Amino acid sequence: MPSSKKAHKAAAALPESIVEATRVGDDFKLADVDPHGTPGFAGDKALGTELLAESADEISELQERLYAEARGENPRSLLLVIQGMDTSGKGGIMRHVVGLLDPQGVDLTAFKQPTAEEKRHPFLWRIRKALPRPGQIGVFDRSHYEDVLVVRVNDLVPASTWKRRFGQIRSFESKLADSGTRIVKVMLHVSKEEQGERLAERLDRPDKHWKYNPGDIDERRKWEAYQEAYQEALVKTSTDQAPWFVVPADRKWFARLAVQQILLETLREMDPQWPAVDLDVAAEKKRLADS
Amino acid sequence: MPSSKKAHKAAAALPESIVEATRVGDDFKLADVDPHGTPGFAGDKALGTELLAESADEISELQERLYAEARGENPRSLLLVIQGMDTSGKGGIMRHVVGLLDPQGVDLTAFKQPTAEEKRHPFLWRIRKALPRPGQIGVFDRSHYEDVLVVRVNDLVPASTWKRRFGQIRSFESKLADSGTRIVKVMLHVSKEEQGERLAERLDRPDKHWKYNPGDIDERRKWEAYQEAYQEALVKTSTDQAPWFVVPADRKWFARLAVQQILLETLREMDPQWPAVDLDVAAEKKRLADS
Repeated sequence: MPSSKKAHKAAAALPESIVEATRVGDDFKLADVDPHGTPGFAGDKALGTELLAESADEISELQERLYAEARGENPRSLLLVIQGMDTSGKGGIMRHVVGLLDPQGVDLTAFKQPTAEEKRHPFLWRIRKALPRPGQIGVFDRSHYEDVLVVRVNDLVPASTWKRRFGQIRSFESKLADSGTRIVKVMLHVSKEEQGERLAERLDRPDKHWKYNPGDIDERRKWEAYQEAYQEALVKTSTDQAPWFVVPADRKWFARLAVQQILLETLREMDPQWPAVDLDVAAEKKRLADS
Repeated sequence: MPSSKKAHKAAAALPESIVEATRVGDDFKLADVDPHGTPGFAGDKALGTELLAESADEISELQERLYAEARGENPRSLLLVIQGMDTSGKGGIMRHVVGLLDPQGVDLTAFKQPTAEEKRHPFLWRIRKALPRPGQIGVFDRSHYEDVLVVRVNDLVPASTWKRRFGQIRSFESKLADSGTRIVKVMLHVSKEEQGERLAERLDRPDKHWKYNPGDIDERRKWEAYQEAYQEALVKTSTDQAPWFVVPADRKWFARLAVQQILLETLREMDPQWPAVDLDVAAEKKRLADS
């Protein structure tokens, strides 16, 4: 029954409702978010997976417009920041959501522990170098937020230093937005129990051993400190220009759908346009015919 | 009838036969290649499209192995070079073939006209900077071959300079291969008639105007000179270490299938392995349970 199915879909899953339901507002409390939930979405895995596939075409068209628009006078770009604890599914987002985009329009950067050179510079130095070019969708797998998360939890700099960074980040992101880069930031929120199961699976499967890092257990032991650090970072840096979204990540299919819908809604709001091209079509047709 | 369908497929389209049929050997003549052909493949568009989708999983697994292997002691990488006249479908290959790969394992570079800085350096300078990192699949949309193609046809350097470049390229690619980068190079071979139709389509559709460049007609007028330049470049630089494949490109579905099968066959031959990881699984399970 195609028509009743469509109606069901529309009722169950207006993408905007996921976007609204995951957005970090002023009175946000991370502890109140259920990592196993599907906020804004009443559908199940089958429907979520179908919606993910169905939205690919619209995103793809908007992405092409963004890319084309950058040939014109007001180039813009989009930056998607993905953060989350180990095993929260960042790689899966890259593969299954970013992977649906046209690779010609994607600037993907995975930030690892800073190199010796990067450490000699201010923390935003390597970030500035990786910003998306005009017309591109930049994707950060981890980001400058590590400098107020892992750095804070492990006391890698004095508290006065990381405390100052919230303001520096707000200012940096505000200037970036003013210069034409739309910013959305997503925290993939996994539960400690689910992380335990995912780490156990890596240990059980020899083809996953290369992904297992004994250091992950050390970080896992600091779970509460990380939640505290995330809480403060989220509320101090979620702004109108660069909002945070906290996406429950215990169900991988939901996290993927949610990130895609956040991306889709952002592109819809940006509403990129085909650039005006100064082209004498008739004359060019003649030149083509003669060639 | 699944079984007879499978048998049909196997008979019609052993991927290796496309790979063999498109490979540039010693007595290769570009003029003998039919741009509308489907060498090595007896199937139609429906079957070709199906095979493209079906091969995605195997490529994806091999790509992950290549990526994982690079954590071990013998990291390797793969470089896919794509060349072709305007409208030959390079962008479609990026979108529909490279787009099937995991973006975390892809280093895509589109080479435009050299910048002022690039012009101050030897022609391979910008190429070296864009080579794939260990474990990555590098993809070049245009490449150092422009320096013996567009540069030659338009007399941008003396003939003695571009003639010297064939040897420089062979030497460069040979060292690159020795250092662990597998190289495959593809020319998308479109006919002049088909190019004319594709340019006309860009003129007919306002949403394609941004892709139309009046300069393309100037290059189109030098069609024969380009064919000559390609012929020489192909035979002088197709080596065992860095073979060329000429893929008929008038049928987009075939070009996409062919490039994918060349990539797939190359990854199969590389046969990347999960890295050996020094991991005390029992001890880690205990640490995990205690965390």
